Amino acid sequence: MVITVKNGEKFEYESPLTAGEIVKNISEGLYRNTVAVKIDDKLCDLSTVVEKDCFLSAVTLKDKEGLDIYRHTTSHVLAQAIKTVYPTSKLAIGPTIENGFYYDVEFTTPIALEDLSKIEKEMKDIIKADFPIERFTLSRNDAINLMKKFKEPYKVQLIEELPEDAEISLYKQGSFVDLCRGPHLPTTGKIKAFKLTSVTGAYWRGNSDNKMLTRIYGTAFEKKSELEEYLLWLEEIKKRDHNKLGRDLRYFTTVDSIGQGLPILLPKGAKVIQILQRFVEDEEYKRGYQLTMTPLMAKSDLYKISGHWDHYKDGMFVMGDEKTDKEVFALRPMTCPFQFQAYLNRPKSYKDLPVRLAETSTLFRNEDSGEMHGLIRVRQFTISEGHIACRPDQLKSEFKECFDLAVFMLKAVGLEGDVTYRFSKNDPKNTAKYIGSVKEWDEVQNAMKEILDDLGVEYTSADGEAAFYGPKLDIQIKNIHGKEDTLITIQIDFQLAKRFNMVYTDTDGEKKYPYVLHRTSIGCYQRTLALLIEKYAGALPLWLSPIQVRLLSVTERTEDYVNEVAKILMDAGIRVETDTRNEKIGYKIREAQLEKTPYMLILGDKEAEEKTVAVRKRGEGDLGTMSIDEFVSKILLSVAKRELN
Amino acid sequence: MVITVKNGEKFEYESPLTAGEIVKNISEGLYRNTVAVKIDDKLCDLSTVVEKDCFLSAVTLKDKEGLDIYRHTTSHVLAQAIKTVYPTSKLAIGPTIENGFYYDVEFTTPIALEDLSKIEKEMKDIIKADFPIERFTLSRNDAINLMKKFKEPYKVQLIEELPEDAEISLYKQGSFVDLCRGPHLPTTGKIKAFKLTSVTGAYWRGNSDNKMLTRIYGTAFEKKSELEEYLLWLEEIKKRDHNKLGRDLRYFTTVDSIGQGLPILLPKGAKVIQILQRFVEDEEYKRGYQLTMTPLMAKSDLYKISGHWDHYKDGMFVMGDEKTDKEVFALRPMTCPFQFQAYLNRPKSYKDLPVRLAETSTLFRNEDSGEMHGLIRVRQFTISEGHIACRPDQLKSEFKECFDLAVFMLKAVGLEGDVTYRFSKNDPKNTAKYIGSVKEWDEVQNAMKEILDDLGVEYTSADGEAAFYGPKLDIQIKNIHGKEDTLITIQIDFQLAKRFNMVYTDTDGEKKYPYVLHRTSIGCYQRTLALLIEKYAGALPLWLSPIQVRLLSVTERTEDYVNEVAKILMDAGIRVETDTRNEKIGYKIREAQLEKTPYMLILGDKEAEEKTVAVRKRGEGDLGTMSIDEFVSKILLSVAKRELN
Repeated sequence: MVITVKNGEKFEYESPLTAGEIVKNISEGLYRNTVAVKIDDKLCDLSTVVEKDCFLSAVTLKDKEGLDIYRHTTSHVLAQAIKTVYPTSKLAIGPTIENGFYYDVEFTTPIALEDLSKIEKEMKDIIKADFPIERFTLSRNDAINLMKKFKEPYKVQLIEELPEDAEISLYKQGSFVDLCRGPHLPTTGKIKAFKLTSVTGAYWRGNSDNKMLTRIYGTAFEKKSELEEYLLWLEEIKKRDHNKLGRDLRYFTTVDSIGQGLPILLPKGAKVIQILQRFVEDEEYKRGYQLTMTPLMAKSDLYKISGHWDHYKDGMFVMGDEKTDKEVFALRPMTCPFQFQAYLNRPKSYKDLPVRLAETSTLFRNEDSGEMHGLIRVRQFTISEGHIACRPDQLKSEFKECFDLAVFMLKAVGLEGDVTYRFSKNDPKNTAKYIGSVKEWDEVQNAMKEILDDLGVEYTSADGEAAFYGPKLDIQIKNIHGKEDTLITIQIDFQLAKRFNMVYTDTDGEKKYPYVLHRTSIGCYQRTLALLIEKYAGALPLWLSPIQVRLLSVTERTEDYVNEVAKILMDAGIRVETDTRNEKIGYKIREAQLEKTPYMLILGDKEAEEKTVAVRKRGEGDLGTMSIDEFVSKILLSVAKRELN
Repeated sequence: MVITVKNGEKFEYESPLTAGEIVKNISEGLYRNTVAVKIDDKLCDLSTVVEKDCFLSAVTLKDKEGLDIYRHTTSHVLAQAIKTVYPTSKLAIGPTIENGFYYDVEFTTPIALEDLSKIEKEMKDIIKADFPIERFTLSRNDAINLMKKFKEPYKVQLIEELPEDAEISLYKQGSFVDLCRGPHLPTTGKIKAFKLTSVTGAYWRGNSDNKMLTRIYGTAFEKKSELEEYLLWLEEIKKRDHNKLGRDLRYFTTVDSIGQGLPILLPKGAKVIQILQRFVEDEEYKRGYQLTMTPLMAKSDLYKISGHWDHYKDGMFVMGDEKTDKEVFALRPMTCPFQFQAYLNRPKSYKDLPVRLAETSTLFRNEDSGEMHGLIRVRQFTISEGHIACRPDQLKSEFKECFDLAVFMLKAVGLEGDVTYRFSKNDPKNTAKYIGSVKEWDEVQNAMKEILDDLGVEYTSADGEAAFYGPKLDIQIKNIHGKEDTLITIQIDFQLAKRFNMVYTDTDGEKKYPYVLHRTSIGCYQRTLALLIEKYAGALPLWLSPIQVRLLSVTERTEDYVNEVAKILMDAGIRVETDTRNEKIGYKIREAQLEKTPYMLILGDKEAEEKTVAVRKRGEGDLGTMSIDEFVSKILLSVAKRELN
């Protein structure tokens, strides 16, 4: 048989041998770094016996697939350790994920973070023992019996769901056997650097009707130094994670009795959103948008016209049952069918177009509990929504205006450099998901491509990400954990006007359907706030800071002066708070620093006497003493310029 | 027998005689004006036979009861006319109401406004015929049979619901017989001035599960001149009725597919509410309130803690069923339990109090369809909500601050003179409606009385109007139809802090419950907007006007100048629109007047050349020509002063 390797070199053998031996023949050095092989593009263990002509390449820890195998084996070592330390535990699944792996386990008594060191210790022993990892296969029935013997009901269930005639592969290390497709490292001793990082709850199969299991997260790296670097990075993420920092800094909270995905914006969070909302509403008004305020719920009748009832019902909160109730209401997942009513209120002519409608719109989506995350993915959110009805000859310029506004907003809050652009198209293989003909979709997607190319946007294309009524430009952003979400979207809708009979009388006297652009200028306020907290590690730019200045009294004697200066600042529209507690000034400064207050004014006897303020700026420290007017001007100027530092 | 009359005079008779004859004996003149009598305080027909000692007084059209009888008879005349013109119609009920009467009727083919004149004509004939109106009684069974014979199923149903042994009274005029308690005028000819005013739909018994009937409204007066005056007033009401004017002026609309009680605020309405919201939020911020934004829905768990689940569930929109769903959500009917979470977020000490929280809060109440009215009574509304947690020693001053803020707001929008104050207390006879002991209620109501007396508010007291958690001051207002509603409320809650375990650590180190004031500063924005539209007949004060200035071009040549001036005004923050259509200037002025635009700028060649503006003010007409700066200053000053004219 002839084995072809990466550089095209060929090796000839007369009898079968293992992939590991072939790699060793290629190069001893390569063999030492190899964790698995690819035989004709299929990932296989080094122990795989090669019997016929093939293409073979070594997979090392430099390859993403190699690192995944390395981590996957670590998850098996974790499972073996768990069964040693907690023999009554039941194993569910243990896949790799970005940056690591996890294992879901049912414990008789759930374990906590402090129990992980015990498990890590056992894992180290397993690694030290350097057990060979052997693959073997069983028939479906034999595999089920084996797992029943091991008292692993989740594994039994997993096997039972495979086809009757499936050949089941399993991996054995020491006395421990796990169901697995593989491949794996040849021995446990190959693992050099690993760490268990956290423990959470997770429903079996992600379904909240099932039992809650314990999920143990961990990671593994080729080198100890890489692991340490990663753990440091994890610490940094924790510091910036809005879901922790935003709570610590009292931007928001959640409570069990209200429910998941329903954050409570505390005064600091509400203030930032108020500032952003007014900024957006004012900018849009200047750009010719008219504000609407439309209802947050409607009868099912409306959603049947819009198509949401057929295409989106699962994501909606529905009140009542069509079988038994005369009126069934649903909370709105989108603003479109509501805002369209403002267009429909009076007949329109070609001269009335474009009609630009804006709304600070609260929406509701019935997300799965596993999907929700802090302020980023929630069940209720408020978005800077808007719809533009325009004639075909206005489509290009209106789209560009929307894009310009979105970029203006991103620049204003400092997120412009952090986004990527995605042209979301329909899925040509699943046209049932969309309304409108293939020809119509092609036309509008070609028009949109032209506009995007004309704008010079660098974008990726994504099939199947369009709205059900048209293609869209998604402005994407990643949170601190690397998860990507849509921040802003601009959509071309060539379908809903028809459904709602939104027409205009054209120059020729004919009734025609306008294009409708669905767009947002700064996205969901909650999500934007979350991203800003993460970007600035809680130290929001002055113009967005809920509190801009904290005034600290140095002694009890200057309490009146603190209040006097605070009043002057407040009258100038500056957001202040005072700290006149009877505490040491160093303590008060440290506390203001922890709160990430942009400016501190330290007011002692000297300042009170001279009617001045001693200024400390966040990140820069002492700026010296200045007059009150000078300080007020400094703040007002920075706010007016919307400075980001 | 001895009959005592009003002035104490006594009349003696030896045998029975009718009340009419007795009145005639008192005075012929009085008899002519009498429509019925009161015998020992019971209203009776003039034909009632008096047989024993009694107190008797004449009821004339000067008495409210007399006018009601007069109108009630007119409703019987209406019914008789309907049966004559539409013999297949079925009569339901025909009571008197404030300012008139109505009759609910099932028509084979529903009738419309234009059909009323036919009926009025027939009514005139019946009045002219001057039928005597005779009362007679029947047993329940005989009455049912009679109404079955007349094919009046609604009357049959009404009688069937009376007790088995009831004696049923009926009234006959000509061949027409109606079921009625009476009393009535002696003859149909006594009716001098009447008018049918409108037709609407109404469910039988007000229940939307029943058949929709036709309701015909009418009124009647003693004199033609009074009727005419009333009809003029009706016209004026129609002009001011926000439910018509607000739609005509495009402040709001409703659509069937969304549903009743869910108004869509069009750009003009949304703009007024935006202005009011910002005004309120800013004023509250100045007064030490902190803004929150809390979720619009929660799990039933929250409402069980607050007591809403037991005391308010019928008024709530519920999603899901506790029997079948793991999580049941409900839209919030009040903000309290949500905003309390902001208090609960961190432990509080006596130094942290008062905590003043404000929110522009959207609420949902599942009102009956019959209850809803325009923007005044709706299913979803937004309120300037707030809660203050304070110590007992702060209660008085905090309550006064709330009152002061409410009066400040009323003055700002010009409604201060239109409100009355109501001290709403518990119902001592129905303590189950409330939480807390009788002793606690007495204490807090006494404290509140002291505060109100101290404030010098002139108020009425109303038992049974308290919230379930405490007494309140309601600031009441009547709409153009005379219906009274609460505009603003300030409530003292001494119960919910306990339920939510909201505590503060007092000076003595003990945990104590604060008082919670529930308050609004300007009420529901939708309701306030409605009342402002009615008060100002759509001509809102300049500072609240959605559009403040309309710029009109006199010729095509001045179109550029119109846009130039518009830009200057917009940059100064003035809300403008332009009319550069190729229409006569007189036409454009009339249209702007119909829209109730506060200012018009008429821009012709002369103004363009001299860079001036010719100003017309709403209600005052031509103000002459001035420089652009002068006009801008004029507008900005009026807005800054929040002038009301």
